Amino acid sequence: MESKSEPNEWSSGVWAHLTAARQRSPLVQCITNFVSMDLVANTLLSAGASPAMVHSVVEIPDFTPHIHALCVNIGTLTPDWLPSMKAAAEIASKLGKPWVLDPAAVSCSGFRLKSCLELVELKPTVIKGNGSEIIALSSASPGQTKGADSSHESTDAIEAAKSLALSSGAVVAVSGAVDIVTDGKQVIGVHNGTKMMQKITATGCSLAGLVAAFLAIDQSRPLEATVSAMSVFGIAGELGEAMAKGPGSLRMHLIDSLYGLDETTVLSRVNITRFG
Amino acid sequence: MESKSEPNEWSSGVWAHLTAARQRSPLVQCITNFVSMDLVANTLLSAGASPAMVHSVVEIPDFTPHIHALCVNIGTLTPDWLPSMKAAAEIASKLGKPWVLDPAAVSCSGFRLKSCLELVELKPTVIKGNGSEIIALSSASPGQTKGADSSHESTDAIEAAKSLALSSGAVVAVSGAVDIVTDGKQVIGVHNGTKMMQKITATGCSLAGLVAAFLAIDQSRPLEATVSAMSVFGIAGELGEAMAKGPGSLRMHLIDSLYGLDETTVLSRVNITRFG
Amino acid sequence: MESKSEPNEWSSGVWAHLTAARQRSPLVQCITNFVSMDLVANTLLSAGASPAMVHSVVEIPDFTPHIHALCVNIGTLTPDWLPSMKAAAEIASKLGKPWVLDPAAVSCSGFRLKSCLELVELKPTVIKGNGSEIIALSSASPGQTKGADSSHESTDAIEAAKSLALSSGAVVAVSGAVDIVTDGKQVIGVHNGTKMMQKITATGCSLAGLVAAFLAIDQSRPLEATVSAMSVFGIAGELGEAMAKGPGSLRMHLIDSLYGLDETTVLSRVNITRFG
Repeated sequence: MESKSEPNEWSSGVWAHLTAARQRSPLVQCITNFVSMDLVANTLLSAGASPAMVHSVVEIPDFTPHIHALCVNIGTLTPDWLPSMKAAAEIASKLGKPWVLDPAAVSCSGFRLKSCLELVELKPTVIKGNGSEIIALSSASPGQTKGADSSHESTDAIEAAKSLALSSGAVVAVSGAVDIVTDGKQVIGVHNGTKMMQKITATGCSLAGLVAAFLAIDQSRPLEATVSAMSVFGIAGELGEAMAKGPGSLRMHLIDSLYGLDETTVLSRVNITRFG
Repeated sequence: MESKSEPNEWSSGVWAHLTAARQRSPLVQCITNFVSMDLVANTLLSAGASPAMVHSVVEIPDFTPHIHALCVNIGTLTPDWLPSMKAAAEIASKLGKPWVLDPAAVSCSGFRLKSCLELVELKPTVIKGNGSEIIALSSASPGQTKGADSSHESTDAIEAAKSLALSSGAVVAVSGAVDIVTDGKQVIGVHNGTKMMQKITATGCSLAGLVAAFLAIDQSRPLEATVSAMSVFGIAGELGEAMAKGPGSLRMHLIDSLYGLDETTVLSRVNITRFG
Repeated sequence: MESKSEPNEWSSGVWAHLTAARQRSPLVQCITNFVSMDLVANTLLSAGASPAMVHSVVEIPDFTPHIHALCVNIGTLTPDWLPSMKAAAEIASKLGKPWVLDPAAVSCSGFRLKSCLELVELKPTVIKGNGSEIIALSSASPGQTKGADSSHESTDAIEAAKSLALSSGAVVAVSGAVDIVTDGKQVIGVHNGTKMMQKITATGCSLAGLVAAFLAIDQSRPLEATVSAMSVFGIAGELGEAMAKGPGSLRMHLIDSLYGLDETTVLSRVNITRFG
């Protein structure tokens, strides 16, 4: 992939998004899988946001109107949770609140894929997954060609992400060695982060939560907010890994680093490029 | 708030409670929210207690008669969990076992507030929440005036706590910059703890579990047991924060510190005052 | 208990199992309790395996045929989870995939004991519990004498484990000061591990997950695979405790150590004996 580096275009925006999140402390409702609840909540707290793990369908009508953003993750989906996800997504969309869909392990069952497609129809602001998930979701979406290469190379994921973005109207973010963010036209690469983060469960889910928090801060620019969240999380991981002896300590240092990120560090480490 | 320091009155009692918890290892049933299960269990283990996350309604009649204390937390309440909470609370109350109610985020829905009021009617030994939660619960309780100030200053919380204590018969504990514990007459302030603990999810839930463990140790003196638990948890947080670089490492050091607390440290750090 | 040390017989096998797990990254489906999901997933990731917390009954027919091993843990069992556990176990047994049953707190209710006996009938490859759990399950199993001594000494657990192994056809593993693994004839003792690991919630559950991963690697030798998993986890705990200040930091160092284990360390620390 060719890319050109544009540090000045992006780094001040990343820092501005983080600063605003810390100052405004957006209320982020998370309907997320059981495995991830602890780390998602701690990630949001460390970034200055206010997490709320509210998932009961009877509470959505009272609670969701008060949130600033929503994050829906299907990682441990069961049929009884789907109505809550849909109800919250519908309220968010109706009230103009941004929401993120994380199609975790979308290919693991027909039920999950079908549920995910139904959620996509409720107009998520951002869809964030790994390459396999985005390719699976894109190729299953209405109007898509089914021929997605199962090799799941980055270039495949880019085309799938662009296609999904255009068909869904969402910004699509693909986590990987290089994170990709696209609205179907622009394609941005976020080069921050480390490979060891994948050895910690729920880091992807936590990133989805952070994207939701940043969307709350800059709702009119979902592409930029998503790019910033991915860069911030990646930088925290880089700083964390420099202190870590393995995934256990990285998990701790990641949270500490996210909490302590300062302007100099952010400006010097943001690594974002525009593709194409 | 005026207060007078009484170190000698309290510190030996705090140490005695912790020592007894370590020696007797009370069995504490926790019906708590998904986000908190890991940290609540680890907090109880580190304090020497024996946690049991048993929440199935079909198991309550067999299991709850054998526990030493119960902790009920409504943080991720759904309608199917309420019968378990009620069944366990009823058995605990009937058999004279102490139990703690944590009205986590009680204001987030009408369902949650209604459920919480029903649980209050089952006579918790202690109700532990933050200022907003105690004010919301107090003003919604039967026989209360509705005029609780939404500014939620400490003095408001004290009056709400006293009122809730008198109407419910429970000791009421309010976590905050200064923790408040009252039985409706006495008002005790616990000045231990650090602000960064609020940046870790489930520390409040974990404190509720610890209160339950200490109630099991000194059932006839719920006010004193609650004060001791709050002081011990706060001291562990103070020691933890002295070693921490952020909320991630504080979470770890908090548990280590709670596990390792010795008499000299406890006696020198207990900071409890009587108000009024 | 008499035992004879046979380092050369076992240590190279332990290292071979760990190496193969890292290379092949077996997909391990975990239907485990809420408390343990985070630590089980992180344990598996640190050992090189690929965890999947998939528990919805509607997903089992699609997903379970693709796994390499299954781990079922009843720690927070409710009636709605039992059909998923049974469905996954049935598919695993039918397709010849190894699976582990962790009868966590099996004695806490009649419902749990009955459910566990039903799961035993679905032919787990390995049953892993602590002494009390194995004794309870063994004495409740069809054809067993009911006279298991409630003192739960190691020798009682050995006899119960052998009896359960013979009646169920499973390898039975008993965690404790010395871990015991038996197929009803051979009785192996694993002397790795530290006492403080019991002060961390879900370490037992995580060990069950690791056993499942190692079974996937060496399906035809479940006794040896189980022994290796218990030794590896114990060694990681020993290394972790040497760096830890309490259970909080042990939890972190345990994961780091498991991730970083090298051949020299494994070969020098494996401590396995044959009893009888």
